[in-house]
Amino acid sequence: MTSESAFIDSLRAFASSEAARGLIDDAAVLEVGGVRLVLTHDMLVEGVHYLSGDPAGDVAWKLVAVNLSDLAAKGARPVGALLGYALGAAEWDATFARGLGEALGAFGVALLGGDTVAMPAGTPRALGLTALGVADGPAPSRAGARPGDLVWVSGTLGDAGAGLALLREGRAEPAGLVERYRQPRPRLEAGQRLAPIVSAMMDVSDGLLIDARRMAAASGACAAFELDALPLSAELLALAGGGRAARLAAATAGDDYELLFAAAPEASPRILALADELGLPLSRIGRFETGAGLALADRDGAVPLPESLGWEHRR
Amino acid sequence: MTSESAFIDSLRAFASSEAARGLIDDAAVLEVGGVRLVLTHDMLVEGVHYLSGDPAGDVAWKLVAVNLSDLAAKGARPVGALLGYALGAAEWDATFARGLGEALGAFGVALLGGDTVAMPAGTPRALGLTALGVADGPAPSRAGARPGDLVWVSGTLGDAGAGLALLREGRAEPAGLVERYRQPRPRLEAGQRLAPIVSAMMDVSDGLLIDARRMAAASGACAAFELDALPLSAELLALAGGGRAARLAAATAGDDYELLFAAAPEASPRILALADELGLPLSRIGRFETGAGLALADRDGAVPLPESLGWEHRR
Repeated sequence: MTSESAFIDSLRAFASSEAARGLIDDAAVLEVGGVRLVLTHDMLVEGVHYLSGDPAGDVAWKLVAVNLSDLAAKGARPVGALLGYALGAAEWDATFARGLGEALGAFGVALLGGDTVAMPAGTPRALGLTALGVADGPAPSRAGARPGDLVWVSGTLGDAGAGLALLREGRAEPAGLVERYRQPRPRLEAGQRLAPIVSAMMDVSDGLLIDARRMAAASGACAAFELDALPLSAELLALAGGGRAARLAAATAGDDYELLFAAAPEASPRILALADELGLPLSRIGRFETGAGLALADRDGAVPLPESLGWEHRR
Repeated sequence: MTSESAFIDSLRAFASSEAARGLIDDAAVLEVGGVRLVLTHDMLVEGVHYLSGDPAGDVAWKLVAVNLSDLAAKGARPVGALLGYALGAAEWDATFARGLGEALGAFGVALLGGDTVAMPAGTPRALGLTALGVADGPAPSRAGARPGDLVWVSGTLGDAGAGLALLREGRAEPAGLVERYRQPRPRLEAGQRLAPIVSAMMDVSDGLLIDARRMAAASGACAAFELDALPLSAELLALAGGGRAARLAAATAGDDYELLFAAAPEASPRILALADELGLPLSRIGRFETGAGLALADRDGAVPLPESLGWEHRR
């Protein structure tokens, strides 16, 4: 057991409110006076969740996007945010503030408040954001997938992971992949539209496979994937090809901030129509079966699970 | 201008929602579907807001208490909290988790969710908590004090500051003062009961004088204090005496987490009756006058403002 999971287990004992969803969901869902509030708090740590050399404005964008992605996964429209900020160099801070304003503005989110603190010089900084949203309909959990449901994912997978690998090699091209890493787009509208249709939904932040395993565990089912069905962008295909290794890399890289969801087969026409309407790919990539855990296959047959399914310590 | 105030100024440009209260209040107040939500996020940094040797359970208590104190100042009843936690040594983390459970339980607050992150070894840790409350009546701002209003404070001042000074000298007695530093008690019930009576309210976290100056600035008035009227505990009087220096120390030490509020003179009987009912001292310590800033006096006449009015970088 990791120290993180031990810590979360010890918190779970008193996170007994139904709203906490056992601390295994992307966000808390709390009914207050007939309003369904959705609340999430995600942190970014320098050197862990972003590179020290990443532009401050992109770090701000990412801090907003990763939190809004959690709201998207619960079908919520974002309302406001509170910032927990460790001050650094004045110029970096000023650029961060501008980037934060741009990101919040892009998604129509008000900055409500927060806290700024001074940390000792030279300390890697920890930044936190709390995002508050309202779900006008149901707020799907991770736990509702049933055997027979199909597994879907929005957008394309692996682009951000490839972008991060490029940056680590000192490369900034192809720009589309780097942008997917630096400026992820939370799937807010898709999440709100999908929420009434799906049986379970979460965002892909740590990697498709590790996140799908979490949904499978919460739902008491096995998620069986067809690797060849994973949606890969033209840029990623051009860079890495479409072979098994490239697909496994895309399924474990994380930072996608796409929606992973389960839905009964009869919902497929509505989902495909929604994809057309939104101009956002929604791809069927597998099926929930009886059992537990994950199963992978491609055109050549069963595929062994890779040793790492994604980021273990990200959230 | 400090780097903190420059940063907050740059955030203010896009924190234009009325709920943000110009980023100068203790908490955000947001109306959602007829419910008045009160939201705050405060951080504690190791070596800045708590001592590295402080017991983990007390740090957890303090993290909860400082946030709930902000809710108290807006007359809100707490509903839930989200934790932003940087993992450390496993034993410290386990003790922190127990302490967090005790503190949340003591105030009837549900842990809703949050995030845990791993920081590089040896890094001072930053811990954050978001607290969500609901105000069933008005949520007084800092900006409503008017010339002629009386200035009041709950409880006693300076105990926590004296407790911190004792700890820094390696002393743990008098225990009551150390406890005031380590286990502050947010004045939740008093805040809820006072909210409909007061014209302005905030909590005293950074020091009475610096916090009162903020209320005076927000309200466009001058806060004139009678130093001899400051409520000091018997333990503090025994340790430090009741002279001018001791009173100025109590007025600038911070960490009190008492309520500072303004109210019209006609409200005094109701306030004094409430003090009796709650068993909590509510003391009249001054008056708002036309003008700006602060004025101090004691039995010997006008008192020059001390160089430091409190903690500048605390929040």
